[in-house]
Amino acid sequence: MSGVSESATNRVTAALAAIDAVDRPEIWIKIRSREDLLAEAAHIDAQAAAGEDLPLAGLLLAVKNNVDVAGVTTTAACPGFGYEPAEDAAAVARLRTAGAVVLGATNLDQFATGLVGTRSPYGAVRDARQPERISGGSSSGSAVAVALGLVDIAIGTDTAGSGRVPAGLQGIVGIKPTLNVVSTAGMVPACRSWDTATILARDLDTAELAMGIMAGASRTWPADTRLAAPSRPRAAYPASLPALPDEWAAEFGAQIDRLRSTGVDAEPIELDVFLRAARLLYDGALVAERHAAVGQFIDAAVAGDGFKSGAAAGLDPTVTGIITAAGGVPAHQYVTDTAALEELKREALSRLEGFDALIVPTTPFHPTLAEVAADPVGVNSRLGTYTNFCNLFDMCAVAVPAGTVAEADGGRAAQFGLTVVGRTFDDGVVAGIARRIEATPDLPALFATGAAPRRAAADRRPWPVAAGAQAVPLVVVGAHRKGQPLVAELERRGSFWDGPVTLAPRYRMVALDTQPPKPGVVRSDDGAELAAERWLLSEAALGSFLAELPEPMLLGSVQLSDGSSAVGFACDAVAAARGRDITHFGDWLVAQASAGTGLAGAGTADKAGHGIWRQTGEALLTGLQRGRG
Amino acid sequence: MSGVSESATNRVTAALAAIDAVDRPEIWIKIRSREDLLAEAAHIDAQAAAGEDLPLAGLLLAVKNNVDVAGVTTTAACPGFGYEPAEDAAAVARLRTAGAVVLGATNLDQFATGLVGTRSPYGAVRDARQPERISGGSSSGSAVAVALGLVDIAIGTDTAGSGRVPAGLQGIVGIKPTLNVVSTAGMVPACRSWDTATILARDLDTAELAMGIMAGASRTWPADTRLAAPSRPRAAYPASLPALPDEWAAEFGAQIDRLRSTGVDAEPIELDVFLRAARLLYDGALVAERHAAVGQFIDAAVAGDGFKSGAAAGLDPTVTGIITAAGGVPAHQYVTDTAALEELKREALSRLEGFDALIVPTTPFHPTLAEVAADPVGVNSRLGTYTNFCNLFDMCAVAVPAGTVAEADGGRAAQFGLTVVGRTFDDGVVAGIARRIEATPDLPALFATGAAPRRAAADRRPWPVAAGAQAVPLVVVGAHRKGQPLVAELERRGSFWDGPVTLAPRYRMVALDTQPPKPGVVRSDDGAELAAERWLLSEAALGSFLAELPEPMLLGSVQLSDGSSAVGFACDAVAAARGRDITHFGDWLVAQASAGTGLAGAGTADKAGHGIWRQTGEALLTGLQRGRG
Repeated sequence: MSGVSESATNRVTAALAAIDAVDRPEIWIKIRSREDLLAEAAHIDAQAAAGEDLPLAGLLLAVKNNVDVAGVTTTAACPGFGYEPAEDAAAVARLRTAGAVVLGATNLDQFATGLVGTRSPYGAVRDARQPERISGGSSSGSAVAVALGLVDIAIGTDTAGSGRVPAGLQGIVGIKPTLNVVSTAGMVPACRSWDTATILARDLDTAELAMGIMAGASRTWPADTRLAAPSRPRAAYPASLPALPDEWAAEFGAQIDRLRSTGVDAEPIELDVFLRAARLLYDGALVAERHAAVGQFIDAAVAGDGFKSGAAAGLDPTVTGIITAAGGVPAHQYVTDTAALEELKREALSRLEGFDALIVPTTPFHPTLAEVAADPVGVNSRLGTYTNFCNLFDMCAVAVPAGTVAEADGGRAAQFGLTVVGRTFDDGVVAGIARRIEATPDLPALFATGAAPRRAAADRRPWPVAAGAQAVPLVVVGAHRKGQPLVAELERRGSFWDGPVTLAPRYRMVALDTQPPKPGVVRSDDGAELAAERWLLSEAALGSFLAELPEPMLLGSVQLSDGSSAVGFACDAVAAARGRDITHFGDWLVAQASAGTGLAGAGTADKAGHGIWRQTGEALLTGLQRGRG
Repeated sequence: MSGVSESATNRVTAALAAIDAVDRPEIWIKIRSREDLLAEAAHIDAQAAAGEDLPLAGLLLAVKNNVDVAGVTTTAACPGFGYEPAEDAAAVARLRTAGAVVLGATNLDQFATGLVGTRSPYGAVRDARQPERISGGSSSGSAVAVALGLVDIAIGTDTAGSGRVPAGLQGIVGIKPTLNVVSTAGMVPACRSWDTATILARDLDTAELAMGIMAGASRTWPADTRLAAPSRPRAAYPASLPALPDEWAAEFGAQIDRLRSTGVDAEPIELDVFLRAARLLYDGALVAERHAAVGQFIDAAVAGDGFKSGAAAGLDPTVTGIITAAGGVPAHQYVTDTAALEELKREALSRLEGFDALIVPTTPFHPTLAEVAADPVGVNSRLGTYTNFCNLFDMCAVAVPAGTVAEADGGRAAQFGLTVVGRTFDDGVVAGIARRIEATPDLPALFATGAAPRRAAADRRPWPVAAGAQAVPLVVVGAHRKGQPLVAELERRGSFWDGPVTLAPRYRMVALDTQPPKPGVVRSDDGAELAAERWLLSEAALGSFLAELPEPMLLGSVQLSDGSSAVGFACDAVAAARGRDITHFGDWLVAQASAGTGLAGAGTADKAGHGIWRQTGEALLTGLQRGRG
C-alpha cells in the first residue's frame, strides 16, 4: 500500500501554512486547532514508526460539514441547525482509523441543497483558479480545498450531483459510489433515498485508495459484481448535448474521439429518459425527501415571524424556499412520482443494454458568481443536467478532469470534465474506464510536501475489492491470459486482471491437442515454476465460467510461488498423457513462440524426457504389473 | 411434467355443474360463458392431442377480479371502477399459454383493501365449510373457489396478507412470492411497492407447478439464490403469540413440536420488530400508497354529494373511508415512515440471522361474519397480525394447512394453518420447509374429475428453477452425496438435491487417500456407468464451492448416461495414479460398504487389472521411451 513519505506532523504544519497563504476563508466552516492536529499527527507518526499498517498515514482530510466529525459542530452550513456529534460518522471513522488526519470541516450549499457553492451564510465558495466563478456545490469547500492543494482528500456528499459538479469544475476526481456502499450513519440527510458520501481527490489512484477504505459492509455487494471493464469497453454517450454551449460541446466531441483512440467503442444514445428523471426531481414530489430530512427544523425556525426568524437561524433564503414548499406535497403524489421514476429507470437501463458505461460531460458550463446571483434556481438546475439522474437510478459514477474549453470572452480556459456513469455496483467498471480519461490539469501544487500519495502500481485493484466485493483469484497459464484467444471469457464476466504470478514448482505443463491450443497443468513432484496470470472475479463469474468449461479442462486449487493458493487450471489425465511435456519452456507464451503451432499431439516426443510422465508412468506401471501378477 | 388425465372439455363441463351445485354466487364477479369455455377447452384438447407440451393442459383457473383477463371487466370489486382490459395480465397470459382455462373472475375485498372477504358490493364471501364464518380476504372468491373444488388453481393478490389469510382459513395452499418475480403488469395496484400476485391451490405440488410458470423474468434472481432448505433446517417461531386465543396457541405449539419431529431445529424469537411494521402500515403514512393507486377515482366518485354518489359507484364505505383519509397524508411523513420501515427491516432480518425461515400462524383466529360487521376495522387488523410485515420487508411466504382447532363453542373444528416466511428470494427454501408441514384437510372433493394434478415425484424442483433462477447441475459421486460426510458443503449453499443419475460409461473410479475418503473420477476410453447424484445450485454457490475445494479434487464437465452434461468431479493425475481402481463396484457407496475403510492407498493392487491405468500408462510409457531414445 501507499502512505506518504513526509511525517504527518510535517504535513499538518505545511497544510496550515498553506491555508493561511491561500486566504480562502469561505472554504472552511471549522479548522481544527493546531494543537489538536499536531497531537493527532504525532500519534500517527508514532504508530507508523512502530510499524503499524496505516494505509492513509498522514493523509490530510477535509470533511464536508454535513458529515459528523467528533469535536466539530455539524452545521450543514446552517448555524442554527448545528449540533455536537457524539462520534465520527462511520465514513470518517474508517478513514481516520487508516491514518488520515481530519484538518477541518468544509463549507457547502446549505443542507446540501444546491450545485453552486454559493448558498451558505459562511460565504460563497469561489473557484480555485478563477475566483469570479463558482466552485460548484454542494461539496464546495471540500472540492476547493483539494484543488488548492490544502488537503489530499475530502469527503463530499452527493444526491443530485453535489460530489461531481464541484469535482468537474475544480479539475479534480470525484467518486460517487453506488448508494449505501458507504454507510450514511452520521450524515445529515438531504434526500435519504439518494444520498451518498463521496471522495474528492486530485487523482484517481488516491481517490480509489480512500474510497476502498471508506466503503464497508453497509450494503452487500452482489455475488456477480463486475470488478472491471473489458479491455475494449463499450461506452454510450449522449447523441445531443442540451445545455452545453458550442465550445463545450466541441470539447466533449474531442474527448470522445480521444477515448476511442484508447480502444473504447463509443456509441451515441438518446439521453431523453435520463433527463426526464431530473425534471421529476426538481418539479415533482420527490423533493419532499428534503422536507423529511430538515423540514421540521426549518418550519420551526420560520414559524415565528417567517423568513426574518429564519435569517436569525442562518437559513439561506433559496434553500428555505425549496424545502418549505416541499412540506406541502401530498404523499400520494410522491408515490406516483416514485412509480414514474421506476419506469424511467427501466427505460434508461434498457438504453444502456450492451454498454459498459455512459459517458457524459460532468457539467454543461461554468457559471460566474454573478450569473448564479441573477438566477439562483435556473443556473442551479442547468448545472445538474448530467448529474441529476444518476442517484435516482442508483447508478455509480466517477468524475474526472478531461481537457479545457477556451472561453469566448478570451479569459482563462475553463476546466472541462467527463463523468463515467455505470449500473448499480459497476463501480469497478466505471473506475477502470475513468482511468483512460483522467487528465492532469494545471492545479496549484499540493501544499509544501509535494505530490499526493499514489497507490503502488502493483496495487491497482478496483476499490470495491478493498470494500468487500467478492474477488476470487483465478490463475491462468494459457489461452485465458491477457491478449490470448479466450480472454474474453473472463473479461465479459467483469474479471479484473491482477497481474503476472508464478506457480509453485509443483506442476508440469503439457501442450494439449485442443482448439485453440491450450497448455495442461499437471501436478508433479518434479515441477517447475510456471509463468501465469491472476484474475479476480466474483463467485458467480467463477461458477458460470466453470459451468461452460469444456473437456478436458478442469479447475481446482493451485499453489503459487508466493505461498498463496488460488483456483487454477488442470486437465484430465487422458489429455495430459496424450500431450507433450513443455515444462522446460516455463511459460506457455514462450513455448508457443518457440515452437509455432506444432506443440501438441499424441505421442510427440518429450524433449525433457523426465518429469510427471516418468513418475506417474512408473506408479501406474507398478499398479498394472501387480494387477496382472 | 403433469397435465391432467380428463380432457379440458370434460373438466370445464364438470366444473360448471359443480358451480351450479354449490350455489355460492358471491364467489364470482363473472363466470365466462359456457360457449367460450368449451371452445377454449376444445382448442386445448386439440393441442394436447397434437402432442403439444402444455404442462397445465385443462387445469381450471379462477382469477381475482383485480387482475386483467381479456374479455372480462376488471372491477376490483367496484362496479363503477370497471374497465375492459385490452389483454390478459402477464401472469394470466403465462398460465393460459401453458394450457390453463380461465373459468371466471372472482370476488374480493374492494380494491384488495381488506383481509375479511366481506368488503364487496358483490356480496360477502363465506367460508367454504362454515358459511357463518368469513372466507378471509382479500382474495376471497379465489380461495373459496379452490377450497370448494370448483377450480384447480386461482390467482390471488397479496399486499398485507390477501393471498395468505384466505388460504389459511380455507385450508388450502397460498404461495406469496418475493415481490416482482411475478409481473404486476395488468393488475390494479393496491400499494404499488408491496403488491404481488399469488397462487392458491389445494396442494403445494400444484401451487409450485403453477407459480413456476406464472413467475418470469420480471425481476432477476440473484446469482447466489438459495434453491432449497438444508436437510436439517433452522426455523424461528414467535416466542409469544399476540392475538391468538389459547386453543389456537396450543395448536401452534403442537405444530412446532410436529415440525421438530421431522428434523427441523425450531427456536423461539421475539417478534416485536416484525409486528411494529404492521402498525406502520395501518396507523402511519404508508397507506398513502392506496390513495396513489385508486384515490383519484374515489375522490371523484365522492366529490358530488359525498358517500351517496360513492354508493352509486358501488364503493364500499369502509374501504372508501380508508383510502379517502390516505389522500391527506403529507409526503414528508411517508418518507419518514419509509425510513422507519427500513430500520425495522434491518432489525427484523438480524433477528433471523442463522435461521432458514420463520414459522408463524397464518391467521390468529377465524371470525364470523357477524364479528366482522360489528368491528370491521378492528377484526381486519387483528387478522393480519402475522401477515402484514411480510411484503413490507420483501419477504416471501408459503401458507399451508396444518391441523385444526376445536372451538370452545363445540362447533365444527376450525382450520389451522402455518405460514413459512423467508428472506427475499428464499422462495425455494420456504417451499421446501412448507412441504414438511403441509396437511391434507377435509375439503370437498375436486368437482367431478377427482384429484387435482400433481407434479410427478421426479419433478419436484423448487419453483424458482422453472421461473428462471440459476440452477447449475453439479454431479457428485462420493462424499457430497446425500447423507455422506461433506453434504453440508452443498446444503449450506442452498443447493437442491435433484436425485440420482448415472455417469456415461466414459469414466473410471479410484479410491483416493483423502480424509474423509473420496472417490476420484478419471476419464477413460474403457469406463463404466457410475452411480452419482445431481444437485442444482446457483452460479455463486458453485463458484464458492470451487474456491474452497481442496487438492487433489478438480471440477469440470462430465457426461451423464442420458446424454446431458453437467459440472462434475475429477481428481488430479498424481492422486489418480496413487489410488486404487474401484470401477467394478459401480457405486462409491457400494464400494465403501464392501471394502470398509481399506479402499485407498498408493500401490494397492488394481483388482480389475485394466482400464485407465493400462491405457494411460502405455501412452506415458511411449512418451517416456521416445524421450529417452
